[in-house]
Parts: sequence; structure tokens; C-alpha cells
Amino acid sequence: MRMKKFINDPKRLVPELLEGFTLAFPEKVKLHGTNTIVRAAPKAPGKVRLVTLGGSGHEPGLSGFVGKGMLDASVAGEIFAAPGAVKCIEALRETCAGRESALLIVLNHAGDVLAGNIARQTVEREKLNVKMVLTEEDISGPVGDRRGLVGCVAVYKVAGAAAEKGASLDECFEIAQRMAGNMRTLAVAVRTATHPATGQPIFALGDDEMEIGMGQHGEAGTGRMLLKSADETAEIMLDKLLADLGVKEGEELLVLLNGAGATTLMELYVIFRRVAQLLAAKKIWLVRSAIGEFITTQEQAGFQMMIARMDKELIDLWDEPADTPFFAKV
Amino acid sequence: MRMKKFINDPKRLVPELLEGFTLAFPEKVKLHGTNTIVRAAPKAPGKVRLVTLGGSGHEPGLSGFVGKGMLDASVAGEIFAAPGAVKCIEALRETCAGRESALLIVLNHAGDVLAGNIARQTVEREKLNVKMVLTEEDISGPVGDRRGLVGCVAVYKVAGAAAEKGASLDECFEIAQRMAGNMRTLAVAVRTATHPATGQPIFALGDDEMEIGMGQHGEAGTGRMLLKSADETAEIMLDKLLADLGVKEGEELLVLLNGAGATTLMELYVIFRRVAQLLAAKKIWLVRSAIGEFITTQEQAGFQMMIARMDKELIDLWDEPADTPFFAKV
Repeated sequence: MRMKKFINDPKRLVPELLEGFTLAFPEKVKLHGTNTIVRAAPKAPGKVRLVTLGGSGHEPGLSGFVGKGMLDASVAGEIFAAPGAVKCIEALRETCAGRESALLIVLNHAGDVLAGNIARQTVEREKLNVKMVLTEEDISGPVGDRRGLVGCVAVYKVAGAAAEKGASLDECFEIAQRMAGNMRTLAVAVRTATHPATGQPIFALGDDEMEIGMGQHGEAGTGRMLLKSADETAEIMLDKLLADLGVKEGEELLVLLNGAGATTLMELYVIFRRVAQLLAAKKIWLVRSAIGEFITTQEQAGFQMMIARMDKELIDLWDEPADTPFFAKV
Repeated sequence: MRMKKFINDPKRLVPELLEGFTLAFPEKVKLHGTNTIVRAAPKAPGKVRLVTLGGSGHEPGLSGFVGKGMLDASVAGEIFAAPGAVKCIEALRETCAGRESALLIVLNHAGDVLAGNIARQTVEREKLNVKMVLTEEDISGPVGDRRGLVGCVAVYKVAGAAAEKGASLDECFEIAQRMAGNMRTLAVAVRTATHPATGQPIFALGDDEMEIGMGQHGEAGTGRMLLKSADETAEIMLDKLLADLGVKEGEELLVLLNGAGATTLMELYVIFRRVAQLLAAKKIWLVRSAIGEFITTQEQAGFQMMIARMDKELIDLWDEPADTPFFAKV
């Protein structure tokens, strides 16, 4: 079966999508070099810069969160592939303009971490002040080697708000680490996507199966099972997340549901309803929430459920204004 | 093949999705009665109310646009079905609180228009001041019987901004009519969705085919053809839209791309890039744009392209602040 995607030459896909993205949001973002998205107007001097990096094919992530209150730069790789360290070095140099401090936020995937580490070490030798935060909140992996999933968006939000308010690099780093350490994510997939370059499915799943713990690129999960109802799925996933994070009665949580691509908002609303009911029954406070498509895997069907333990400072930072193409707080 | 959607009992789908939606955005919206979404905090007295109505299964539309700067109420029907007139009457009574004026915005689909007309006539007899605007911008139908597609979002935006600034009902009606009369939409579909209640595909299309002019619920279009590249598709659709609207060199356009469900933002960016290039070559000014999923058709693959001729007042109203769950302007 022919791949049914509106693309041209797969070899030109990433430059074409970045060009279209910047043409659509010219008041918010612009392209620097060949594959780095930066703010249309740079942040005021003296404020910490936030930089991230990662493969393309997950739109609106990651570049959709460049803008006031969140990221200053996003370095985009090829489809599902880390950008090279050279591009990350150039992005840090450009964003810091030779003197500003930067917080580099990297999702834990081998290629991204490698590029991030080389970039950080290189610009440190040029006397730039850079710290790196790793997001690794996917509970389907063993502690110490967990993937970064949609939780990065919460880190961008709270650390971005702190930076906007003039926090130092050490303070932004501490906020980002606190958010990263208090969040957990679990994914579920029910139908595969096709890779836009090869036209091939990225994984296989039976007609009546779902898989819990699937990674961002179809990496194998931990629990293949018969397809469950919305309420059953919500309960299975929430219980695993609460146990892993060790959430106790009376604590305050942010819950974020991230559609993988083809799963509808309609379904995410139904799932969210059950999550809210279950938390209320456990006397755990659902204090903030977000639902939408933040980091997708092409037209895969499924979603990620993220929970995060919030304190007053994190809630206040979450509530600060943001104005990016795909995340806004008025 | 079993339908792979996260739902429970299809009979309870609409109340469950509305419950989840309001639980996820409690600071913005709340449920009134069984199926009307209203603002969490009503607009100040004396300002015109905006009310819309339509079937569910198109999330985030239509209720995702209730909030400051856009709608005051949205009456949701069952999946792909108009809400009854009784619910619309109740929504108008509630939103107007016995004295406020209301602009009712209805997408041209037979059941919606019937419900809207009965509701308007009924509350007029109760001395409420109501005007109704019909959106009918789908150029795949004959003039005089064209469907309303994603263009309603632009009408909500500009009329909602006018209402927020204190415009009279006559003024809001004129703004809404001007926006509705100057917009055109065309849809393309490449892969069907399944109906969440029946589990059946809503239309059939060959493995190598696309259909231009497909309606919001799989209604037949006007141009079934072999799947084209992104650039070819963009050019075919834009040319039809420009011709129908009679756009001339030097005019200013808003372009909105609306993903149907499974089509990725990645693809919409590539399409948008070509639209921007083609408009530049024709010396037509692309002054505003929006890309995302606004009104979906479950996990259908395809998109709607909307263009609208803008004047200075419409642009200014488009730029006014908005704060709704799925459309924000900071």
C-alpha cells in the first residue's frame, strides 16, 4: 500500500517542513542556518537562554515550543534522528551571542545525549556558561536508562518562565531538575505509523492488541495486551505512574495527555475524565492539566500520559505567560 | 478489524467526552445542562454573546473555542449529528440570561440550520435579540448550497473580538457576515476514519487515491484522483480557491490549514510552504496564517485549506487577544 502523506522528495522533507513552519509563524520564530529554529526577536540580554535538540517527525515538538516563556532555540535533526553536534554547537553560539548563559535540555535518547554533551563541552571551552538537563521520565525503562518523552514540555515551561523572570543559570537548572525529577510518563500504542522516508511501518501490532510502554519511535514496550476500554487503559496507566512516582494522598499533580498522532482529542477527553475520577477517589489533587498533541509520532495511534508532582513554585511557573506557536498561556 | 479507539460504551461517548473536556480546562469552560459548553466566567453584561452548535466527533471543534475573545456557548450534538432545537433554545436562554443579545453562528449542514432557525425564532418570541450567521464556504458545492467547514473558526475569532470590544449586535453581525462572505475552503481526504459508534469506515477510497472536496463527515467530493505530491496538491487546491474568491494581485489573505486528524503537522507545514511560495509569485499578500487541528473528522487523513480576503478591520480583530482551550492569541 502506498504511503498516504503529503510530502515531496523525502530527502528534502526536513528543510521543507522547517521552511513552512517559519513562514506560518513569522511573528514568533525564524530559521537560523539550516536547521535551528530561534525566536523571531531574541530575549533581553542577561536572561538565561533555553536550548533543546531532537529529531524531526514529531511536530509540533520540539520547535513548536520556541517563543516567549519557553525555548530560545531548537536544533532539529532528520526524521527520528538526532541533529549532529556541530549544529548544536552553532545553535548555542548563536543563541548565547558569545556571552549569555544557556540551559540545554536534552531528552534521553543516545544520539541526542551524545550531541548535547559534545556541544556543551565545546562551548564551555569557549567560556560559555552552559548547564545540561536530561529528561528521562519514561517508566517503561529501567531506572538509570529511561527515555525522555513528552515531559520535556513541562521542563521547557517552568524553566522558561524562570529564565524570563531573570533567574540565574543555577536557579533555572535547579527548577528544571526539580521538574524533571518529579515527573513520570507512560505511553500506549494501538496502531503503527509509517516512516515518511521509507514508507514502512515503524512497528507491528495485532488487530486486537495495544502495547504499553512503547517509545517515541516505536521502540518495544513492556506490556502487550488485548485492547482495553478507555477507563481500563486509564486505570492501568495511572496506577503504574502513581506507584513509580510514589504519590501519596494529599499531594498535588499536573496531568498531561499527549496524543501520538491519529488518536483523537475525543478519546483523550474520555481518558482524562477517568484519570480525574481516579485521582479524586484517592484524594490526590489534580491541580493543573494539559491535553493535546505536543510530541507526535507521525500518524501513530496511542498517547502518552504524564504526571508530575507540583509544589507552589512549579505551579506558579507553569501559570506564567507563554507565547509559542503550539503552547500559549494568556 | 476491531476499531482501535479508547472509548467505553459508545452510547455514553458524548457525555463522557464533554465531562473530560470541562475537567481538563476548568478555568476556561464548564458544562451547562447535559451538552452545552459555556465560559467558566460569563462575559460582562451588555456585551453581545456568541453561540454556536454542531455535532461531536470533530474535537477540538466546536466547543474548544469557547472562551475570552471567541464563543460564549457551544451546543454539542451526538457524534456527527446536530443537537436538537430544544438544547439550542436552552443554551440561548442561559447565555443571554433573559436580556443579552446573541449572535448565533451556524455551519451550513441541514440539521444544524434547522435547529438554529427554530431556536432563533423561539427566543425571538421571548423578546431576545438574536441574529444568525450561516457559514457556507466549501467551494466543492454549488453556490447557494455550500457546506460550512473550518472557516467558522475565523468568524468566531473576528466577531468574538468585536463583541469583546463592545460592538452592537448589528455590528457583530456585519463583521461576521463580512468574514463569512470573504472566505473559501476546500478539503482533501486520503484515508477514511471509523465512526466511533458503529466502528465502520465513513467512506471508501483506493490505496492510491485522494479525493478533493470531501465534506466534514465523508460526504462525496468533486475530484477523485491519483495521490499527488504536497506541492501539486497545494497548487491544485489554492488555484481553485483563488479563482472562486476572485482574488486579485495586491489583495491580502489569511490562510488557514486544518488537519483532519491523522495528517501530520509536518505535512501541513510542507503544504503551507508551497502556498506561501505560490502566493508570493502571484503578488498576493499572505498577511495572517494558522495551522493546526481545529475541526477534525476522527482519524481521517487529509486537510482543509481555507483562504480569506482580509481588510484592515478584520486583521485587527484577528489580532485581538483570545484565550480558549484550543485557540489563543497573546
